[in-house]
Amino acid sequence: MTLHEQMLDMGRRAVAAAHALATLGPRRKNLILEAMADELQAAREAIKAANARDMAAARQSGLSDAMLDRLLLTDKRIDAMIDGVRALVGLQDPIGRRISRWVRPNGLIIQKIRVPIGVIGMIYEARPNVTVDAAALCFKASNAVILRGGRESLECNRVLADALQTGGARKGLPDDVIQLITTTDHDAVRELVQLEGMVDLVIPRGGEGLIRAVMAEARVPVIKHYKGICHVYVDAAADQTMALDIVENAKCSRPGVCNALEKVLVHEAIAAEFLPKLAERLGARRVEIRGDEAVCALVPSARPAAPEDWDAEYLDLVLAVAVVPDLPAAITHINRHSSHHSDAIVSADKSAQETFTQLVDSACVYTNASTRFTDGGEFGMGAEIGISTDKLHARGPMALEELSTYKYIINGQGQIRP
Amino acid sequence: MTLHEQMLDMGRRAVAAAHALATLGPRRKNLILEAMADELQAAREAIKAANARDMAAARQSGLSDAMLDRLLLTDKRIDAMIDGVRALVGLQDPIGRRISRWVRPNGLIIQKIRVPIGVIGMIYEARPNVTVDAAALCFKASNAVILRGGRESLECNRVLADALQTGGARKGLPDDVIQLITTTDHDAVRELVQLEGMVDLVIPRGGEGLIRAVMAEARVPVIKHYKGICHVYVDAAADQTMALDIVENAKCSRPGVCNALEKVLVHEAIAAEFLPKLAERLGARRVEIRGDEAVCALVPSARPAAPEDWDAEYLDLVLAVAVVPDLPAAITHINRHSSHHSDAIVSADKSAQETFTQLVDSACVYTNASTRFTDGGEFGMGAEIGISTDKLHARGPMALEELSTYKYIINGQGQIRP
Repeated sequence: MTLHEQMLDMGRRAVAAAHALATLGPRRKNLILEAMADELQAAREAIKAANARDMAAARQSGLSDAMLDRLLLTDKRIDAMIDGVRALVGLQDPIGRRISRWVRPNGLIIQKIRVPIGVIGMIYEARPNVTVDAAALCFKASNAVILRGGRESLECNRVLADALQTGGARKGLPDDVIQLITTTDHDAVRELVQLEGMVDLVIPRGGEGLIRAVMAEARVPVIKHYKGICHVYVDAAADQTMALDIVENAKCSRPGVCNALEKVLVHEAIAAEFLPKLAERLGARRVEIRGDEAVCALVPSARPAAPEDWDAEYLDLVLAVAVVPDLPAAITHINRHSSHHSDAIVSADKSAQETFTQLVDSACVYTNASTRFTDGGEFGMGAEIGISTDKLHARGPMALEELSTYKYIINGQGQIRP
Repeated sequence: MTLHEQMLDMGRRAVAAAHALATLGPRRKNLILEAMADELQAAREAIKAANARDMAAARQSGLSDAMLDRLLLTDKRIDAMIDGVRALVGLQDPIGRRISRWVRPNGLIIQKIRVPIGVIGMIYEARPNVTVDAAALCFKASNAVILRGGRESLECNRVLADALQTGGARKGLPDDVIQLITTTDHDAVRELVQLEGMVDLVIPRGGEGLIRAVMAEARVPVIKHYKGICHVYVDAAADQTMALDIVENAKCSRPGVCNALEKVLVHEAIAAEFLPKLAERLGARRVEIRGDEAVCALVPSARPAAPEDWDAEYLDLVLAVAVVPDLPAAITHINRHSSHHSDAIVSADKSAQETFTQLVDSACVYTNASTRFTDGGEFGMGAEIGISTDKLHARGPMALEELSTYKYIINGQGQIRP
């Protein structure tokens, strides 16, 4: 079979699996999730051995220490993966839930019911735990999944996907619900995202390069975020100690992630008082400040920001800071430069908070809290399959509900349309 | 300005208009809708004159009588357009509605709130009333719209779009909320659907050719249906008189629309009894039946169906009919050949109804009713901007709620992430 034929075959199998899944109720799916967790536990040594092979190859190919750490599966990390699958058992099953119901004057009963999306393509990079998280989440929402992980974790992903499918099958998981693309041929990604009529949704997770490559080729719907350019606006009416805590947390607690802070805007009325404190606090954390003219005049250690700084995602201990004349200027700046992921205002002024949350056009808009909370777990969704900065279907953290869609069921008694 | 620059300029204006719209509350929007309706009324003679120019040009270019009828605006049709705008005043405004709210253990208050999508591109063909319906619906959901109608109705569309924008402006409608593409250059469509970061959604309405052309070029999200291949399955337990009424209504009441019936599947247990009655009923309406072998054996007037008949959208007085051995075979046939628009079962058997509605993977699944009810007005949505056979964001009839998305507003008291 050519690669094209192989991928068509995978697509057809996934569609058949999705149809078979439609008959499984919530209790049966939870038994299958438990069996998947049990099988991961039973396969622990095989998982570690496969991971060791991946690690050896990765070391030889000169992967960075940071990437090697992401690839590594320790017993603790395997425990966390297994716990993650078991935790899904306790989460509310979105499928079959009635969203609404109404009766028309002619007696037609219309129900809007949550149903699976169908077949989901998941494209991701190094971390092998995504294999388990994504497959289990897709399954809990009754979707078939085609997984395409990074080549670095291929050996381990094979064992993990096999354990999930084999373990689940003991309790009635239909064939081919969880399929893994095992070729490292890069064209497989293109083939996957062009399986129109088979793949209902592709979710790419990884760097901006990966996601742009997917978008350039895709003929099926994709939900994604390219990057996280998150802002904190420190209002004239801000509790400045709170603002310092929030900026430090949002910038420094994990600078390499998408909900980390990249820009701070400060109201000019408090700039002279606040900026030196900000510089001191961030200096202690070795954060480089790139400022506009007003900031550089008040913060001697700041470097002048270039125009492109306002659109840059550093993913590093660098922060661009600007002074704005008022709240509307802050909102205009954010709507122009934000990646529409997560933006925050720090202010004690209720009216400023409301104007900000109403007018800032981002997936998650915060008042007086760190942007780092944009996360399915932190939102109480129990897990997440990704974060969307798109506006259609899903925005912000995506979990079980976002892995479902709806259909209308219309019950009549013989009605015809006049 | 080149066409590209013109379209970029339109995109920028639309984004600014969308931001300005975010400050208008429901009462203000309703005042604007009333003013739009008043202005349409005041412009009635200008609308008719422009329509007369379009009609004259269309006659000269040899448009078919059916197309000419679609293009024509009578006083009655203008009344209906104006009434449609006024009817939107009474509909619930989706924007600002709280979808859900919860409090996290750390005290963060998370709210999921309906917000506008932003900028919508609307691409459509002859009927000038779509200009008014689409613009008014998009506006009621606080979206800016860029309209691209058919060249046949350009003169009339100009007057209509201008009346809406000018009338609305009297009550505070921001500039550029309703923009019309007035060039007939076909490249304008390509430019429009490639305005990434400006146009949030494109809705094409028209024939399959138009929609495929949009999809081939689009870089922004599109919600659409290509076609409506709708099925009625007549179960062994069907009330056969009801089945005849439903099939006749779904096939004959308006054969050229997407919710019209194209295929009938009959359970073999009743085939010998039901098919002659069906042939008689449809024969009286001059419907051509194309049947599988079993059908042709029972219906002398039937022509044998070719394999491609099962995937054809006739939009005409033609119907393909097959006999199936049982309910699962009917479901499998439908999931393979349906366009996932609207499919129905006629059966008195509750269990068969439930299996059918659970397993048929279409936007609208009916029991004992005509597929012709798939329509925003018939569903009680007050209006519709289109029908989606996509699975993401919106399925089935789309109206105000489907022209909105959501964002999360998170209110904290200084929370940082540990």
